[in-house]
Amino acid sequence: MGTFEHDHRRRRKARAGAPGRSVDYRRLVNPFEPMRVFTDDQVEAIHQNALRILQEIGIRVLHQGGREKLKSAGAGVDEDTMIVRLEKAIVESALSAAPRTVELIGGSAARNVTLGGRNVSFLSVAGAPHASDIDRGKRPGTLADLENFVKLTQSFDVLHMLAAIMEPQDVPVNLRHYATMRAALTLSDKVPWVFCRGAGQVRDSFEMIRIVRGLSEDEFSRAPRCYTVINTNSPLQLDVPMTQGIIDFAEAGQMLIATPFCLAGAMAPITIAGALSLQHAEALAAITLYQIVRPGAPVLYGSFASNVDMRSGSPAFGTPEHVKTSFGAGQLARRIGLPWRSSAGTASNAPDVQADYETQMSAWGAVMGGCNLLLHGAGWLEGGLTASFEKLITDLELLQSFAEMFQQVSCGEQDLAFEAIRDVGPGGHFFATQHTMERYQTAFYEPLVSDWSNFGRWTETGAKTATERANRIWKQKLADFEAPSLDIALRDELDGFIARRTREGGAPIDA
Amino acid sequence: MGTFEHDHRRRRKARAGAPGRSVDYRRLVNPFEPMRVFTDDQVEAIHQNALRILQEIGIRVLHQGGREKLKSAGAGVDEDTMIVRLEKAIVESALSAAPRTVELIGGSAARNVTLGGRNVSFLSVAGAPHASDIDRGKRPGTLADLENFVKLTQSFDVLHMLAAIMEPQDVPVNLRHYATMRAALTLSDKVPWVFCRGAGQVRDSFEMIRIVRGLSEDEFSRAPRCYTVINTNSPLQLDVPMTQGIIDFAEAGQMLIATPFCLAGAMAPITIAGALSLQHAEALAAITLYQIVRPGAPVLYGSFASNVDMRSGSPAFGTPEHVKTSFGAGQLARRIGLPWRSSAGTASNAPDVQADYETQMSAWGAVMGGCNLLLHGAGWLEGGLTASFEKLITDLELLQSFAEMFQQVSCGEQDLAFEAIRDVGPGGHFFATQHTMERYQTAFYEPLVSDWSNFGRWTETGAKTATERANRIWKQKLADFEAPSLDIALRDELDGFIARRTREGGAPIDA
Repeated sequence: MGTFEHDHRRRRKARAGAPGRSVDYRRLVNPFEPMRVFTDDQVEAIHQNALRILQEIGIRVLHQGGREKLKSAGAGVDEDTMIVRLEKAIVESALSAAPRTVELIGGSAARNVTLGGRNVSFLSVAGAPHASDIDRGKRPGTLADLENFVKLTQSFDVLHMLAAIMEPQDVPVNLRHYATMRAALTLSDKVPWVFCRGAGQVRDSFEMIRIVRGLSEDEFSRAPRCYTVINTNSPLQLDVPMTQGIIDFAEAGQMLIATPFCLAGAMAPITIAGALSLQHAEALAAITLYQIVRPGAPVLYGSFASNVDMRSGSPAFGTPEHVKTSFGAGQLARRIGLPWRSSAGTASNAPDVQADYETQMSAWGAVMGGCNLLLHGAGWLEGGLTASFEKLITDLELLQSFAEMFQQVSCGEQDLAFEAIRDVGPGGHFFATQHTMERYQTAFYEPLVSDWSNFGRWTETGAKTATERANRIWKQKLADFEAPSLDIALRDELDGFIARRTREGGAPIDA
Repeated sequence: MGTFEHDHRRRRKARAGAPGRSVDYRRLVNPFEPMRVFTDDQVEAIHQNALRILQEIGIRVLHQGGREKLKSAGAGVDEDTMIVRLEKAIVESALSAAPRTVELIGGSAARNVTLGGRNVSFLSVAGAPHASDIDRGKRPGTLADLENFVKLTQSFDVLHMLAAIMEPQDVPVNLRHYATMRAALTLSDKVPWVFCRGAGQVRDSFEMIRIVRGLSEDEFSRAPRCYTVINTNSPLQLDVPMTQGIIDFAEAGQMLIATPFCLAGAMAPITIAGALSLQHAEALAAITLYQIVRPGAPVLYGSFASNVDMRSGSPAFGTPEHVKTSFGAGQLARRIGLPWRSSAGTASNAPDVQADYETQMSAWGAVMGGCNLLLHGAGWLEGGLTASFEKLITDLELLQSFAEMFQQVSCGEQDLAFEAIRDVGPGGHFFATQHTMERYQTAFYEPLVSDWSNFGRWTETGAKTATERANRIWKQKLADFEAPSLDIALRDELDGFIARRTREGGAPIDA
């Protein structure tokens, strides 16, 4: 391709002074019509089925205060069984109070995140007990691993918020939230996740955010600056820490993602319509309690429904059923008008081709189903038990590709290129045309991991797989990392708070 | 998960007599609305731009007979430059003659294929000069490799037709078509691909199909029983063998796929709208010639437009631009009302995570863009230079997942599972419910490659990657292979024909 080489020199000379490619991944809007698996009538049937489940079967709420709040709003409560039955009107009233769009406030204006409408945010894996990389393999996650994952999350704009990526198991649970929040708040300015592991830990976490953002309690509670995910205990149960978390987050006006984790064939019915009915009922119950505590507080409709392997009971992700369930969940979220959180996932034990195809299948299901927030979009391995450094990087290629797909294709006269085609004529090439020269630096996505060299060159440079290249990339990103600026006084105040609370014994994980 | 184990025994007992899962992958209908990147006005602008290109710039046709046929239909021909200019009316007349749906006739009724509307067919890699597997690596393809690929294609219903998978380089080119067609016709009953490498080879290939299917020449030409792909020489050229192929296929009423191979930034404009304008013009020219030779003969609108790496000139596949170009190509195919062939692809040199994510990105682009035929959907590696045995298998997981996604989600009263949810109640599980027992054998897709076991069991069983499992799968499929039945007399006639033609010196690849 001598012609190309020659023209490449011309292009390189032309580069001086010309602006390079610059796509803002910080605010993404998905222009595609969401995909659907149900008719409007079927969506309505599932919605009404869920309302009937809450009214006739009810949900068991293990937290007494939670039951009381629901009762005060008119729910029927059986204190012996702890089962709460919700009339349709109570749920509908709660739904009408929930905002259609949520604006989360980050550590800098550029990190604010809008959830709702066609806006899309991508997040990494959350909550994995283990870390892995191809140098050291799988091991219990440490604080050092978590800090590295936070730095990597901070380094890529296509990850819009900071997930609770991995559990640092070398930190005792009563002190762990200090370590994780300190990493989140000093190594990143993205909106952080707070775990609901008891009111004490939540209170501490809110306080740490308040300190670092320089806010009074009143200022803090006026807008959401962090978020949590509560999972119901399917089928139809809300445990004590989760219910406490709903109440704490509502009272502080912070964002709740109410996500039942419904595996069809195990803790949910084996049919997609049945699993979605159960998921919908549980999500509605959590959302209702949250809106009862503070009407108008920001909440996302969460879904994470897949299926199990009926031969072993193992959870499966990225299956065709997972994709269809995501499409259906998106329809249900739009039915009730709330922003929708979905998930990617894989059951693979290695960062291999299965890990990739399952993650991508589920991500397409979520994104093309119209999700507003994709959780577990990068680095999730082994059914969520492991956060993989290499997979984080290779998954980012997918997320950046989605971000690029969302950019409009222009189709003006210059784009149609009639003159360029005429000037080149039959049998020519477009390498050096003016039309190409004007656009070559900005026309195409430049990949993060992909190697497009030919077999000879690829072999000469070590025949590295994408996973091996990803290993090099995350190490380089860590070497290049610079933490966002943080006022030294605020940082000292944070460290003082952590030191004091540590002396006081920290906070237990029960409520 | 003791409960699951216990219930699993109950389910295993219940299995006796119950029908297992059985999904027919042979005829797939995509129920999803095609995705779009252009407004209707923009689609019309590209269509009109292409017509203007053909009218004002024209296409160079190197084949004299082709020019004559176009001239006789009213085209302006400059014999010095060999450039043919086509008035809009000629193209529109050709388009109005082309059928909207094509029914291809296979070696048995179950192998017939419908192209058009919402029907979708998947095909493997085609035309790779090399084969690879993880035991022996990359090497020039041999007839033994090709025969194995044909057997594997025959073994999976989700591959609907037989592509010209790989070039057996151990067979001389003047005899190669006898070997490839013999493999296609004796090891498979799927609709075969015929290469357009000169009229002699095409005539021989038609004759071999006629013999094996037991048809007179007249019967053969009454319905399409094979297909070819012709690539224009972008920009705006049709070479001699391709033009001859268009004429030969039209005269015999066999199916043509007219596919420009437009790499934006190289042989096509760097803009998506420009590259699609060029692709559209070239496809329209080929379709027009084909319809002039035999109005109403079956033809597909083919697209394979991606972009190059502007730093090296290397072709790239599965890029965001590739996906968007596919969505746009689908819109253009629907504008002219023809069935649409699209493609998956990857530039990766190894069957690694890059190979998977690029293939899957491009496959989603094609399938969700509404393609009727996906070429290169399984086994394509290294920009099409290599057919990989392991990647064929892992890609089949994706294709089967698409096939499953296309199946309707039922949402009747039993699917909504209200009674099952009530019977299980809060805190229970669905493993052993009647609702689950009635459905567990048929509810979910059973994967081909995916391993959903936990890390401990996976490690005990050798910690195999998906690619290593795929290696075992293709070998097992070959060991289990049974060729479709073929009348011994027809087979003898085929071998007699091949022996005679071989004695006569075969057929050269020029026209």
